[in-house]
Amino acid sequence: MAYSRAVVLLSGGLDSTTTLAIARAEGYDCYALSVDYGQRHRLELEAARRVAAALGARDHVVIQVDLRRFGGSALTADIPVPTGRDPREMTDIPVTYVPARNTVFLALALGWAETLDAEHLFIGVNHYDYSGYPDCRPEYIEAFERMANLATKAGVEGKSRFHVHTPLIRMTKAEIVRRATELGVDFSLTWSCYVPGPDGRPCGACDSCVLRAKGFAAAGIADPLAR
Amino acid sequence: MAYSRAVVLLSGGLDSTTTLAIARAEGYDCYALSVDYGQRHRLELEAARRVAAALGARDHVVIQVDLRRFGGSALTADIPVPTGRDPREMTDIPVTYVPARNTVFLALALGWAETLDAEHLFIGVNHYDYSGYPDCRPEYIEAFERMANLATKAGVEGKSRFHVHTPLIRMTKAEIVRRATELGVDFSLTWSCYVPGPDGRPCGACDSCVLRAKGFAAAGIADPLAR
Repeated sequence: MAYSRAVVLLSGGLDSTTTLAIARAEGYDCYALSVDYGQRHRLELEAARRVAAALGARDHVVIQVDLRRFGGSALTADIPVPTGRDPREMTDIPVTYVPARNTVFLALALGWAETLDAEHLFIGVNHYDYSGYPDCRPEYIEAFERMANLATKAGVEGKSRFHVHTPLIRMTKAEIVRRATELGVDFSLTWSCYVPGPDGRPCGACDSCVLRAKGFAAAGIADPLAR
Repeated sequence: MAYSRAVVLLSGGLDSTTTLAIARAEGYDCYALSVDYGQRHRLELEAARRVAAALGARDHVVIQVDLRRFGGSALTADIPVPTGRDPREMTDIPVTYVPARNTVFLALALGWAETLDAEHLFIGVNHYDYSGYPDCRPEYIEAFERMANLATKAGVEGKSRFHVHTPLIRMTKAEIVRRATELGVDFSLTWSCYVPGPDGRPCGACDSCVLRAKGFAAAGIADPLAR
């Protein structure tokens, strides 16, 4: 059943973990892909390994692409990560935006999917809580899917089509926390923080920590990683 | 004049070298990007360094992405490279096709371009001589360009647009050789062969060597690398 194979982008954070749990619950045979792109928060790659194993991914590949060569983001260059912002301040494109990151990630997922004869790609983008990121918008995802079907053998042979699944795209963070809870996700395995403290715990103040805390609070669920 | 900056994908072969020469002749300030993806013919990366320097690229980055983790191609897995084929046999998708390679390359170029505030991407794809590659077709390039403009800050802010230039897309190999000659390209700096011989010279028999030889022959020009 090659046609139930899916490549799932997995950072190890809350959103991609929930996305993998959803793909598994929908019956896909999941191949998890993480990217070591030189991010400050490389700790998330350890989380990705734990999550891939816990959720029964068939395989997990961590591929290295050093996006620090290009810089341009607080996650890949010497630019401070903002802290203590209210979610209502996060409407502009933040400095943690990494130029073309999701396009690079999806392109790699597409290459692996074509090799695996997998038709399905999953990515945990979210349009509401990260509305500032251009590459989290539905219109971007649709354009990528269209391009992907022209980029590959599928487009020439008309044999199969790639589908880019974004199950979280219209969910709030609270809805994501609730859905993950229903699916039995162990949140203690995940990692969201951009700037872990000297004690190796989440800082609680970066945008990623703030959005995570807001989601758990709104869902009325305790985050095992909270300070 | 940030708006005359261009990121040029440069493998070090005949086509990408000619593309860089054209971009320079058109007045662009060129940033050459090569990808070390685990290709058999890593010699081409040395050619790319020589060409970038000779043609006056402002900068040259070689970024590593190990596509051997995915395999699926004679260039990245243990699959024999075909030799001795007639160009008329090269109509199907060849085993040297690397899944989603141009999408990965263009995604990386887009990331660098966004950081550099460059609007222009150049890629030396050719629709005629490599008609079997899905990611060398005009409709693919157009779809990538559309996606790129949604993927980035440009698409949100409406400030600038990315253009993917493919100056060779409708040229024959002979026309490419002639154009490169007009532009003063030193062909001895380039590298096209997939399976260099033990003497470090081109094999003369892989598809890439065959197409190159055909192009030089049809143009009536001697290839300094020919045996």
